[in-house]
Amino acid sequence: MPNSFGKVFAISTWGESHGAGVGVVIDGCPPLLPVTAEEIQAELDRRRPGQSDIVTPRKEADAVEILSGVFEGRTTGAPIAMLVRNADQRPGAYDGMRGKFRPSHADFAYQAKFGVRDHRGGGRSSARETIGRVAAGAIAKKILASKGVAIRAFVTRVQDIAVPENVLAGLEFPSLAEVEANAVRCPHGETAAAMIGRIREVRAAGDSVGGVIRCRVRGVPAGLGEPVFDRLDADLAKAMLSLPAVKGFEIGSGFAGTLLRGSQHNDAWIAGAPGEGGGIAGARTASNRSGGVQGGISNGQEIYFNVAFKPTATIMLPQQTVDARGAQTELTGSGRHDPCVLPRAAPIVEAMTALVLVDHWMRQNAQCGTFVF
Amino acid sequence: MPNSFGKVFAISTWGESHGAGVGVVIDGCPPLLPVTAEEIQAELDRRRPGQSDIVTPRKEADAVEILSGVFEGRTTGAPIAMLVRNADQRPGAYDGMRGKFRPSHADFAYQAKFGVRDHRGGGRSSARETIGRVAAGAIAKKILASKGVAIRAFVTRVQDIAVPENVLAGLEFPSLAEVEANAVRCPHGETAAAMIGRIREVRAAGDSVGGVIRCRVRGVPAGLGEPVFDRLDADLAKAMLSLPAVKGFEIGSGFAGTLLRGSQHNDAWIAGAPGEGGGIAGARTASNRSGGVQGGISNGQEIYFNVAFKPTATIMLPQQTVDARGAQTELTGSGRHDPCVLPRAAPIVEAMTALVLVDHWMRQNAQCGTFVF
Amino acid sequence: MPNSFGKVFAISTWGESHGAGVGVVIDGCPPLLPVTAEEIQAELDRRRPGQSDIVTPRKEADAVEILSGVFEGRTTGAPIAMLVRNADQRPGAYDGMRGKFRPSHADFAYQAKFGVRDHRGGGRSSARETIGRVAAGAIAKKILASKGVAIRAFVTRVQDIAVPENVLAGLEFPSLAEVEANAVRCPHGETAAAMIGRIREVRAAGDSVGGVIRCRVRGVPAGLGEPVFDRLDADLAKAMLSLPAVKGFEIGSGFAGTLLRGSQHNDAWIAGAPGEGGGIAGARTASNRSGGVQGGISNGQEIYFNVAFKPTATIMLPQQTVDARGAQTELTGSGRHDPCVLPRAAPIVEAMTALVLVDHWMRQNAQCGTFVF
Amino acid sequence: MPNSFGKVFAISTWGESHGAGVGVVIDGCPPLLPVTAEEIQAELDRRRPGQSDIVTPRKEADAVEILSGVFEGRTTGAPIAMLVRNADQRPGAYDGMRGKFRPSHADFAYQAKFGVRDHRGGGRSSARETIGRVAAGAIAKKILASKGVAIRAFVTRVQDIAVPENVLAGLEFPSLAEVEANAVRCPHGETAAAMIGRIREVRAAGDSVGGVIRCRVRGVPAGLGEPVFDRLDADLAKAMLSLPAVKGFEIGSGFAGTLLRGSQHNDAWIAGAPGEGGGIAGARTASNRSGGVQGGISNGQEIYFNVAFKPTATIMLPQQTVDARGAQTELTGSGRHDPCVLPRAAPIVEAMTALVLVDHWMRQNAQCGTFVF
Repeated sequence: MPNSFGKVFAISTWGESHGAGVGVVIDGCPPLLPVTAEEIQAELDRRRPGQSDIVTPRKEADAVEILSGVFEGRTTGAPIAMLVRNADQRPGAYDGMRGKFRPSHADFAYQAKFGVRDHRGGGRSSARETIGRVAAGAIAKKILASKGVAIRAFVTRVQDIAVPENVLAGLEFPSLAEVEANAVRCPHGETAAAMIGRIREVRAAGDSVGGVIRCRVRGVPAGLGEPVFDRLDADLAKAMLSLPAVKGFEIGSGFAGTLLRGSQHNDAWIAGAPGEGGGIAGARTASNRSGGVQGGISNGQEIYFNVAFKPTATIMLPQQTVDARGAQTELTGSGRHDPCVLPRAAPIVEAMTALVLVDHWMRQNAQCGTFVF
Repeated sequence: MPNSFGKVFAISTWGESHGAGVGVVIDGCPPLLPVTAEEIQAELDRRRPGQSDIVTPRKEADAVEILSGVFEGRTTGAPIAMLVRNADQRPGAYDGMRGKFRPSHADFAYQAKFGVRDHRGGGRSSARETIGRVAAGAIAKKILASKGVAIRAFVTRVQDIAVPENVLAGLEFPSLAEVEANAVRCPHGETAAAMIGRIREVRAAGDSVGGVIRCRVRGVPAGLGEPVFDRLDADLAKAMLSLPAVKGFEIGSGFAGTLLRGSQHNDAWIAGAPGEGGGIAGARTASNRSGGVQGGISNGQEIYFNVAFKPTATIMLPQQTVDARGAQTELTGSGRHDPCVLPRAAPIVEAMTALVLVDHWMRQNAQCGTFVF
Repeated sequence: MPNSFGKVFAISTWGESHGAGVGVVIDGCPPLLPVTAEEIQAELDRRRPGQSDIVTPRKEADAVEILSGVFEGRTTGAPIAMLVRNADQRPGAYDGMRGKFRPSHADFAYQAKFGVRDHRGGGRSSARETIGRVAAGAIAKKILASKGVAIRAFVTRVQDIAVPENVLAGLEFPSLAEVEANAVRCPHGETAAAMIGRIREVRAAGDSVGGVIRCRVRGVPAGLGEPVFDRLDADLAKAMLSLPAVKGFEIGSGFAGTLLRGSQHNDAWIAGAPGEGGGIAGARTASNRSGGVQGGISNGQEIYFNVAFKPTATIMLPQQTVDARGAQTELTGSGRHDPCVLPRAAPIVEAMTALVLVDHWMRQNAQCGTFVF
Repeated sequence: MPNSFGKVFAISTWGESHGAGVGVVIDGCPPLLPVTAEEIQAELDRRRPGQSDIVTPRKEADAVEILSGVFEGRTTGAPIAMLVRNADQRPGAYDGMRGKFRPSHADFAYQAKFGVRDHRGGGRSSARETIGRVAAGAIAKKILASKGVAIRAFVTRVQDIAVPENVLAGLEFPSLAEVEANAVRCPHGETAAAMIGRIREVRAAGDSVGGVIRCRVRGVPAGLGEPVFDRLDADLAKAMLSLPAVKGFEIGSGFAGTLLRGSQHNDAWIAGAPGEGGGIAGARTASNRSGGVQGGISNGQEIYFNVAFKPTATIMLPQQTVDARGAQTELTGSGRHDPCVLPRAAPIVEAMTALVLVDHWMRQNAQCGTFVF
């Protein structure tokens, strides 16, 4: 089931950019969770087109309808189906794409794989598919919130405009308000302003930029993650690489950590102060180059990782490509698009992170919390 | 099944560092493939301890026995079980670890998760578990070879000693012999010598180093990968992050690509010359910043990615940690270990890559090659 | 994913009897299959309420909308989402059920499992859930038809009114028209008339009856089925027992076959006549007590099996039960219902059979048709 | 993974009748369960060849070795690999089978599916494969025992020799000793003696017989089972049909129940007496035609079901068949075999039942016991 993610708390997304709509089914949600369409909508609004002047102007309210699995305001344990109708479809705008493969898009690969493709706006490969992920993620976040877990993704770099290293290293866990304070979702105001300027500049030039999102998670207990293959970091990596435009993932010290020696890199364990929990429960690490995951299992420290997004493939400049018969041709971008996907990607990164965590939490409980001997 | 990987060509590994042995079961191998224990052994010998003076001196022949699924020299389609007995067990050497959590190892997290752990040599979290992966990968590689696919992983950086950028960019696809020419598995001899020197130096200091492995794959046809979640790059990322000590993954232009604009980053399509295959089959890209994967599907170009390995957590220097009761204590490493895991990790990276590709190939055929309308 | 079925051609159903609607997502459908909503609708009409005077009078058009995965009349390989809105909801009619557990219904068990339930019309446990199965099955049947496979389920017994043994044994493979010729879907007219009489009689008495459905499949090639666990017969058994009201499954000689000796029961192989295919391809069995499956794999002979449906649990007579607090109470059935589920179950049995066969066909091809050595 | 069963407590079996051995890997076992090889061996001894004069005389000690996942006498949560070496291999005895397909065996179907087969003793299709299931089942049974669940399978009919209906209906839950009291594992001594006589008689005639096994389970709490597809009864049906020689499954009233009217068949709920548990916990049903499962979920009553085993396909009489080229030929059975599989099948049925129950228990806890809102 290539369109499903998660083993116990599992989601299945469906839908195309210019079809009837997009949606998701959650299978395995715990019962009795209070859920309203408004809560889902609030998360969808964070990824919605047209939310600011630096994202695509496509007009979509992205209004969600809960079709099943919620009864009298609470989940029942049955599948939760959610539907968002597509509204602002301009399929004609994509006629030029029908017979030409947009460079660095999925067009060519889909055609090679399936022998057919819905070319309108990228069809299934459109980032519009992530609506279902965000809707499901809203429920996963609510579950996590009930356990004191908070997830915050924010933009740390747009092209070469980055939050300064020392600022980033010293940053408190940002509040939602701090991330939402500007259109680019970077909690460092000065950098955010520069990022927004850059995005406007490349948009005016018909070009695009990429960058890096950091995600931080606090409150995760030690013990989540399922070695040897379903490691927590491995599933986070898969979750992130399953997003459109992502080309890299690193957790904790990541690529930079490879420049250190073991004696510099290791995270020493520090005993908890009296009152911080008995036994090993109160222990913490002096540093956190592990990024909160060791041996594929959460160790109780903050989890953090970086995700690399390439520049948007759609640009308004002429490019060389081939047509459906394989002949050389030229293509100039059209259709509405984001000159930089990162601002809208931040809530998507949060959603995927929440889905991974809830699924692992339930799996941990299934194996280690069911029977006591 | 957290110890299984793959959906159609699926492997399940089992075993601990100092238990009776380690092994793997392959479920879903195509029938009629000629397989010998010698072929498997050849791959295992590439990851074996004691193969050179820069790896762990643990004495293990790692001799493999095929227990099932092969009849008269060919696979039957039934599960292939393979067993490697542990030989050089010195559990006493790990007594000090019983009550202390080694920093940046999996000890603490395993204890928190399961409430118990086999502490000897890391137990299940030991890299010895990857023997099963390499044994299964040997069969996957043989399948791929029959289709003209070659996979080569090699070390491009040890701490800060790296193959020069321009050399790396211009490197021909290395032969197996070129990678095996030196103990560090770096095909650039000059850099390899410096790397070996560094590893000897840190070993002498009781310390450790990490680095980066690049993996290149040629011959993969367009069309492999299962969006939206089981993207080829997402499954490669998961495969790599499921390996001990891995902290990062990037495909194609990766993190560096985020510094470019879309107009600089996009891979233009170039029509095939006459005779290179009809229609789109002959098309290629002028550049390959996508790394051979677009929209989560192979596009027929070379696949390449980088994997970041942190410095080995085991060092021979005193470190602060807590004991089983959570009290502060000190630990000095003991036991045999690799001062740098990268030389032995290269064949493991190849094995995991082969497993991902065979599984996706079979899945692609299941959906798109079964029924023709 | 308890609400998903199939590993390669996988379906996920969602929805409750009196929620917004019911639906299904198919993940893994081969691309390029021509599909229309009308074809789906035709199968849904066979299971629709109100189709005759011996089924529930609930007024539902069960009009299906294809939301995704079909582009310009053909499947694209992307998930196919289908939606049927609920129309004739009379939730008030079920108020009496809110606090009382209907005997031999799922009410008590759902409440015990989830701690909550949508009591209206049985909620998720309603047979209305099978709409998604039938919609997906319509596509599976079309795929199978392209390979010459035909599936026919029909009612062979209602309570004690059965097609005579010798008639059943000698029955040609019934045409769709023969099965649809009467309201009870029994291809033996005389028996059908008696069955209909019995159903009318029990309905008048406020009571209900069960019976047996036989399913026959011809045209399945030898080789489908995935031992040792995903045997073709094991997956058919699971598919049937996953239907509401089913209490038994037997394939081939089934329970009666246990009365024979091996020498009486074994199916001798008979060589094919010249021209019936080379080698073993033309071989057939003299008898077919195996029911077309041996060792869990189809053997090229007709597949047939029986499914036992208990009498409908909803009856219009007073029954003893307990209420939500566990206190003794009495309940008299209300709401619309089928006095006998078998007539409407026949197309559902066909749908589940088709889903199993397509999934196994794709899996067989994945393992045994992908690589040739 | 066709050779794996279970989603959370998952087993994978491997091995052939005359290969190096057979085995199993359990993935997902809860940690800290005390396990010894002796306990596993005790269950294996119940299915061992040569245990009495009515089973196959093949000489196999079936000695089990635990290779991983158990440390200092307790499970660690890591995969538990278990190995049984084959000892009494007489491959030469099967040379006649190499080129001929034994009637009603899996030979033909395996050849058609895989294009190759290990013909020796049936290879993978041999019931010897079930050793792995029984070894894993021993652990599952131990887990269930810790929760007060008991499983008892016993033979109720051999060919037409059956425990009388009224005796069967009134039978107390048999103790293990009562079932093990005779070689045929029928707790009704008089019937057992007749069964044993019949088996000796058919063996002397070179023939074989089948029959019916009943399995009863007490102590299962209400709430296990995962509708709509992974119903508890559906997974039990699949588990049973995945066993060699099984042709039918019925739960509760089964096929006979279809002869009743709803008013006769429904199980009325009876309030618990004071002290039997508060609320609905103390409720029970007046009758138990549901067999302890309603809507696919356990309802707290005793679970019971019947399994139909066909007569052993191997007989010592000449039979018509085709050879590897498809030509007509004759075959007379050879090799050691069971004239009736039921006595040795009883512990296998128990093992599969235990595996289904533990898996569902863990799944239930994962969804409904992880988060409380």
